[in-house]
Amino acid sequence: MRKKIALIMICIAAFLGSNAQELANFMQRAPIVSPEIGEKNVTFRFSDPQAKLVRLYGSWMPDRTSSVNMMKDTANVWTVTLPTPSPELYTYHFIVDGLVVNDPRNIFMQRDGTRYLSVLLVPGELTENYFEANERGNLSKVWYDSPTLGINRRMFVYTPYGYETSGLEYPVLYLLHGGGGDEDAWSTMGRARQILDNLIEKGLAKPMICVMPNGNPGQQAAKTQLLDEKAFDYRNEATRNDYINSLVKDIIPYIESHYRVIAKTEARAVSGLSMGGGHTTSVTVNYPGTFDYILPLSSGMRGEPGEIDPQLLKIKEAGYKLYWVACGKDDYLAYQNSVNLAEALTRNGMEHTFFVTEGGHTWANWRIYLNTFAPLLFK
Amino acid sequence: MRKKIALIMICIAAFLGSNAQELANFMQRAPIVSPEIGEKNVTFRFSDPQAKLVRLYGSWMPDRTSSVNMMKDTANVWTVTLPTPSPELYTYHFIVDGLVVNDPRNIFMQRDGTRYLSVLLVPGELTENYFEANERGNLSKVWYDSPTLGINRRMFVYTPYGYETSGLEYPVLYLLHGGGGDEDAWSTMGRARQILDNLIEKGLAKPMICVMPNGNPGQQAAKTQLLDEKAFDYRNEATRNDYINSLVKDIIPYIESHYRVIAKTEARAVSGLSMGGGHTTSVTVNYPGTFDYILPLSSGMRGEPGEIDPQLLKIKEAGYKLYWVACGKDDYLAYQNSVNLAEALTRNGMEHTFFVTEGGHTWANWRIYLNTFAPLLFK
Repeated sequence: MRKKIALIMICIAAFLGSNAQELANFMQRAPIVSPEIGEKNVTFRFSDPQAKLVRLYGSWMPDRTSSVNMMKDTANVWTVTLPTPSPELYTYHFIVDGLVVNDPRNIFMQRDGTRYLSVLLVPGELTENYFEANERGNLSKVWYDSPTLGINRRMFVYTPYGYETSGLEYPVLYLLHGGGGDEDAWSTMGRARQILDNLIEKGLAKPMICVMPNGNPGQQAAKTQLLDEKAFDYRNEATRNDYINSLVKDIIPYIESHYRVIAKTEARAVSGLSMGGGHTTSVTVNYPGTFDYILPLSSGMRGEPGEIDPQLLKIKEAGYKLYWVACGKDDYLAYQNSVNLAEALTRNGMEHTFFVTEGGHTWANWRIYLNTFAPLLFK
Repeated sequence: MRKKIALIMICIAAFLGSNAQELANFMQRAPIVSPEIGEKNVTFRFSDPQAKLVRLYGSWMPDRTSSVNMMKDTANVWTVTLPTPSPELYTYHFIVDGLVVNDPRNIFMQRDGTRYLSVLLVPGELTENYFEANERGNLSKVWYDSPTLGINRRMFVYTPYGYETSGLEYPVLYLLHGGGGDEDAWSTMGRARQILDNLIEKGLAKPMICVMPNGNPGQQAAKTQLLDEKAFDYRNEATRNDYINSLVKDIIPYIESHYRVIAKTEARAVSGLSMGGGHTTSVTVNYPGTFDYILPLSSGMRGEPGEIDPQLLKIKEAGYKLYWVACGKDDYLAYQNSVNLAEALTRNGMEHTFFVTEGGHTWANWRIYLNTFAPLLFK
């Protein structure tokens, strides 16, 4: 019997390309499903024979002190079943005798900066565009030379379903990440590809290309690529704007010469969150008339009327089609600056939307913002 | 003073796009570097105040019982310094009171099927092509219709540096993963993009396109995409070959109509590991004359001369340029079948290489095989 099991394991090992020891572990673990999402309840499971106390923390809980105890069964599997939180993309972890660990049973993980997080994606109306559409665009990891920054760099480029064969020219959304993020952030944590795919398939958004550059000017690419980084000093007046300069002088020309795009102001949108919102406001005041759609998220602008108004008036003079400022009410980092920007736009007679939501400085909001504003573009 | 620190933390939180609590954790953790690779030694560090015993296991160790104890310092950081293992890409984990956990300080992770693993990439001659080259090709996640399988599916497509503007037509390597893998496996665990970039930049390999499909016929894409899967029955004679049929009937036509490729037998290579080696031998006997370069890795062929010879003779008759069989000596899953295939090729007077290496059924070998055979293609 043992021999037979060993043989079966070798066969499965052949299939899995693993070694026998890993296989043994795998087979022990196979029946443990986590998370298991039902309509009313969600169950998390975690195998650990030695742990004394295992708790679960999920980002839907008010704070870390809200983590809940899990119960151990006779097979040493710790389990907790909770009411399914409202539809949203959450992250969660186990706390095993004080140690934070991801869910080893969950293949769905996201990288947030340097940290990997287990994901719980609850289906529902709010999240329906976060799942795969039927008609999916392609996502490419594209390397380009940045003469402005003096390095070769990576960006992610989304092309909509049908791009390859349509022969059409497309408008472009330049979508910028926040501090701690990189070129990967919008397509993983932001679900940008899925959101655009779904909106386009439903006829709610125009088919568009979406360009997601790396906003850290010293980086060639995300740290996962193990490439050298240059120090970058934002206090240096001479180089402070190098990244936004590279956006206009390096990235836009690359996109407009390598993709079938409408190379016109009316077909360019720029949006970004937090630091990327700062890049959005900076690039549009430094290069007025380049983007007709301007959408700073969870960012706003600092400054007295005397500082901010002359900058915004450059945009007013050049003309634009949409100025869309979004922020969560509880965003203590950006709400005041967002109000400041909205007031300045009003004061200068510049048509705009101030899209105020619940919540704070979170990816939950940034996904909602993309899902909300993409249908407004290029129309 | 506390107020000042809180203020600094809010500022950094703004930069990082995190909340204050995460920030506090982040700041505590910031100085812990792991792994720290020196020329002679590598140090691993892990913070856990409550753990009683923390061990390190690395894939360079002979087996799990070789894991080593880590020592806790006064700041509750567990540390171990070891002689740097020979250059290779390894995975490792900590064992915290019996619990296997990844290194939370290491941004370099790989997904192996359903599991995520921390990576240690030791630089050296053997691994020099596993790091980023200076001239990098692009990697695209491409969705295509598979009429043969009746689903829309995803593959990864590598285009070499300069593809976008060269105007040239390129040969194509179809590179197939093993059981438990998916379309992501060769480019992450296999370092296929980096290997091809480096070989092409050095003038050792011809610039080529590399297509990495998903070899699980019931899957639309890797499980990370949360898409429905169809059951697939390999025992059903009628559908058993559907995947290799889709390779020739769906994937090759897609590539040859969507990319600038040389659409000729002499410009097509097919290689795969383990299950993908099986796909390689199957597709070439079922579609002789389609690929001039045939490279089954860690796979071989089963069967008596009476079964295997008539199949191989179809390839002999159609003609081919390279038949390259690779296997590790210690590969108990595939070595005998590889010998069987090499003997059959010899018996039938078919020129071939039997590339036998140390080691077993491992990604270490598959990276070495790709690095070794890519220079032999399309010449």
